[in-house]
Amino acid sequence: MEDFINTTQPMSVINIGADFFADAIEDQGVSVTRVSWRPPAGNTVALATLLADPQVDEANKVAAERMLAAHPVLIDVQPAREVIPALQARKLLHAGPPINWERMCGPMRGAVIGACLYEDWAKDEHEAIQLAESGAIDFEPCHHFNVVGPMAGITSPSMPLYVLEDQTHGNRTFSTLNEGLGKVLRYGAYSPDVLERLRWMQDVLGPALARAIRQMGGVDVRAIMAQALQMGDECHNRNKAASSLFARQVGPALAETGNSSAETAVVLRFIAGNDHFHLNAGMAAAKAITLAGANVPRSSVVVTMARNGVDFGIRVSGLGDRWFVGPAQVVQGLYFAGYGPEDANLDIGDSAITETSGVGAFAMAGAPAIVQFIGGTPADALRYTNEMYALTVTSNPLFGIPSLDFRGTPTGIDIRQVCRLNMPPVINTGIAHRLPGIGQIGAGIVYPPMECFEEALEALAEVEAG
Amino acid sequence: MEDFINTTQPMSVINIGADFFADAIEDQGVSVTRVSWRPPAGNTVALATLLADPQVDEANKVAAERMLAAHPVLIDVQPAREVIPALQARKLLHAGPPINWERMCGPMRGAVIGACLYEDWAKDEHEAIQLAESGAIDFEPCHHFNVVGPMAGITSPSMPLYVLEDQTHGNRTFSTLNEGLGKVLRYGAYSPDVLERLRWMQDVLGPALARAIRQMGGVDVRAIMAQALQMGDECHNRNKAASSLFARQVGPALAETGNSSAETAVVLRFIAGNDHFHLNAGMAAAKAITLAGANVPRSSVVVTMARNGVDFGIRVSGLGDRWFVGPAQVVQGLYFAGYGPEDANLDIGDSAITETSGVGAFAMAGAPAIVQFIGGTPADALRYTNEMYALTVTSNPLFGIPSLDFRGTPTGIDIRQVCRLNMPPVINTGIAHRLPGIGQIGAGIVYPPMECFEEALEALAEVEAG
Repeated sequence: MEDFINTTQPMSVINIGADFFADAIEDQGVSVTRVSWRPPAGNTVALATLLADPQVDEANKVAAERMLAAHPVLIDVQPAREVIPALQARKLLHAGPPINWERMCGPMRGAVIGACLYEDWAKDEHEAIQLAESGAIDFEPCHHFNVVGPMAGITSPSMPLYVLEDQTHGNRTFSTLNEGLGKVLRYGAYSPDVLERLRWMQDVLGPALARAIRQMGGVDVRAIMAQALQMGDECHNRNKAASSLFARQVGPALAETGNSSAETAVVLRFIAGNDHFHLNAGMAAAKAITLAGANVPRSSVVVTMARNGVDFGIRVSGLGDRWFVGPAQVVQGLYFAGYGPEDANLDIGDSAITETSGVGAFAMAGAPAIVQFIGGTPADALRYTNEMYALTVTSNPLFGIPSLDFRGTPTGIDIRQVCRLNMPPVINTGIAHRLPGIGQIGAGIVYPPMECFEEALEALAEVEAG
Repeated sequence: MEDFINTTQPMSVINIGADFFADAIEDQGVSVTRVSWRPPAGNTVALATLLADPQVDEANKVAAERMLAAHPVLIDVQPAREVIPALQARKLLHAGPPINWERMCGPMRGAVIGACLYEDWAKDEHEAIQLAESGAIDFEPCHHFNVVGPMAGITSPSMPLYVLEDQTHGNRTFSTLNEGLGKVLRYGAYSPDVLERLRWMQDVLGPALARAIRQMGGVDVRAIMAQALQMGDECHNRNKAASSLFARQVGPALAETGNSSAETAVVLRFIAGNDHFHLNAGMAAAKAITLAGANVPRSSVVVTMARNGVDFGIRVSGLGDRWFVGPAQVVQGLYFAGYGPEDANLDIGDSAITETSGVGAFAMAGAPAIVQFIGGTPADALRYTNEMYALTVTSNPLFGIPSLDFRGTPTGIDIRQVCRLNMPPVINTGIAHRLPGIGQIGAGIVYPPMECFEEALEALAEVEAG
């Protein structure tokens, strides 16, 4: 038997939490095992109350079951004004929590200018800015209409929208069609080629997809995502498999219902030319999944995470339509040649709905090749997914990751765990130039500000108490 | 300090090689670390000579460099008789090493019967068998004409063939087009629907793909494989990503050059309906890669592994066109509902060219989802790839596996290492029913017989000595 302290053997130290103690011990040549630990975030009384309340667990179970049961299917493509009656007025939808023209960032302003030109509300940039400044345009978050828009997310009345229907719960969700990379409206570009492409999408691509999708009786977007997650996509910043599966699936119907072989070829070439074509449909599916989990009284599950380039906002199942907002953060990632952090806008877009639904960065273990695009190593990709199991209330068996022995992706972020562990959920994202009209300049990893979760936690505790 | 043998501590034993010693020790409650080791296979003098010869290493380096430099591009689709002049006679090509009608297995006989009906050489099964028995059909391996055929591999004059050209070395390689799953000629089925499909492939699919591929200026099959290996395919028994990428790539040109929208839709639907559609093009690319490494004097690199359902044959770079043959083995795997090992044919097909070129089972680390089809666990998939680095002379940087930190797939099987480690290369494969006319009944893992490698080793040592 050895004594508890054996001075003839080297000392081993375990350090929990802040690193300065470990650093000091290591400087003296002693081996230190570092255990990551941070004190809980926010109101610890509220946290303790909510963690101890079995009703919250029950509510989260209901929310999670609804999320896993959601079955979003793409059933149509329609002009936005046809499916969102509010867009019959002079209204623009935007990404993230509510924001007015005065506070909008560069890329969102650029996209607003582009939308005014595209809708013929203004004849040039100057007029568009005047219009926006005049207050004659009504701005509202996409999320308020169950729409999701990547990056600036500007959705105007004439744009064709994917219409998804949740076959289980009957909800409808929507998103624009993906314009491709380079100079595109969602990154704030509004040059004539950008507007020309948007008009072609309105006149040709949208109607062609509508005919094909109706003839097919719908496209099972959830099934495409489930397959893509076994094919190296995480369905946020890697959509190569999903886009290929989608092109392969709709190709025959596009040919069969096309106006002409020449037009079908152009449509197929547009779809085939974009590795991210499926992103927007996947986002609308993610919105359907999270929407299914919304409005469960007492539930602490996050059902929206969205950014407008200035603010980051979340909404929580048990707290209805209320936004909890903090400052949008700087994205850490890889920049395209010629750009750097000083050119970058803050985190922007509704695409974090993917993480909210259990894919995106939460599914990166299945998408190790993405590190070539957003930075890091395949080991980091694995770690991101593994860490998210600690924050979530369930895993989605339909979204099994082969390299994790087909374990489902972590699903349903619990604000209690985010605060308890003081660990915000991870998001991967594209980086927009901070000036309008330039476009994407990189991609990387970003975290929400903790205050969103802390404030939501207090609000939920108040509802409990109330 | 402790004594070397400390009888107060538990004993730890390391066991190298045969397990019976380890088993006996473990039965006494002692912990045993098992080190896998087998004595070398074959002629150890030949092995020692060849392992010590730097000229073999040099030759293997040349063979490997040529394999890695091969750049197969799909440039056309043509009737077999147009690109293989020998097929203007009454000749059928078959998978694997040479075999005559008398020794052929059930599925290969079924495919021969089907080919005779398809080519109108016989009006029924009975006549076809008579014709084959009469010796009036000349049988020769696909490989003798740089053709590769999955399963039975029967290639007849009228069948459309992919024509691939190695842009680096100028070689041309060929394969038939994939018929889909279920009742198909390559598994020995020859019912009227099978023949009707083959005729449609001849009249419609082949010409449509030919027009599209020519208009595109070729399809870079190596690039498709490189992408697919990052998307969960291993390019032998999982081809979902490659097939999707191929469909997405040729879709626009198929529409543009199609005879009619209706015909294009049927062609696209046929391609889209088959997760293995790309297999045959990938096999022809694998043939181009291995062909580039062939005929390097003194090289011990394997350039062909192929099975006819009775015999397994290999060819080695430094030994020219000579086949080294052993008995085809039983496949270990998963069976479709209603079938079992007693129904299975022995290992069959030219598709082991994928492993020979460094993909297939050699790339399974990147395709963990394949275990749902062939059995085992994702950890097995990783292990197969890792083990093959010990048998191969290089790795292919174009075929990087994300989960291995983008390490290239193990490439260029060295018969010296196979014999030294007494470890045959791993192959994954479909399982054919042993009777003609039924089709695929499962998929699994199989190994070549060691005697192929042992005999080739002796032959190479003789060439050295001579």
